[in-house]
Amino acid sequence: MPTEEQMKSTLQAYVDGFNSGDPAAVTGLYADDAVVVDPVGNPPIQGRAAIEEFYGNAVAAGAKLALDAPVRGSHGDRAAMAFSVHMPGMRIRVIDVMTFGDDGRIVRMEAHWGPGDVES
Amino acid sequence: MPTEEQMKSTLQAYVDGFNSGDPAAVTGLYADDAVVVDPVGNPPIQGRAAIEEFYGNAVAAGAKLALDAPVRGSHGDRAAMAFSVHMPGMRIRVIDVMTFGDDGRIVRMEAHWGPGDVES
Repeated sequence: MPTEEQMKSTLQAYVDGFNSGDPAAVTGLYADDAVVVDPVGNPPIQGRAAIEEFYGNAVAAGAKLALDAPVRGSHGDRAAMAFSVHMPGMRIRVIDVMTFGDDGRIVRMEAHWGPGDVES
Repeated sequence: MPTEEQMKSTLQAYVDGFNSGDPAAVTGLYADDAVVVDPVGNPPIQGRAAIEEFYGNAVAAGAKLALDAPVRGSHGDRAAMAFSVHMPGMRIRVIDVMTFGDDGRIVRMEAHWGPGDVES
């Protein structure tokens, strides 16, 4: 299992990679068969091809991420962060929870945001 | 399933009940057989008696909660919040994720915080 510090560094790399406009810097943090649930309540997507398409679209749409508070770790295999997604004409408030595999890559991401968390 | 607004109101009631020093105002938000995992990575506790003991102890220790950002909803049965626990001589940064039952009560709480999220 990765250390708390390693998990937090990965979440920071996720934010930084996203904001650099390089989807591969984000998708490379995921295991090949990872699951992404974004938002929670919608059907999950799974696997490298689907994840690359998802982040390619998000980065192409001009989304930028800003942490609302320091990244949280856990006593287990998870870390979490509260952030805002800034897109042209829209802001979405989100809490992501990431679960890690033994090799330190993300095996599951769950994004908590609802219709009421979207501001135009 | 409760609405996003109902779930967010319940999380706000959780914070307010905690800060009023009344553990029953918090434990009453839970279903009788609910599970609390605090922190993630530690063994869960389950059921009304265990949950009442848990919150009784936390409130008696003088803990107060302060939201770090607005509560997040979801498109499903979950809501989440980033907050700080202020105790005498200590602060803990936490992200809680709550899962709701059809009657609007919390059936599962998972608290994400690690050793690195505790400041003295």
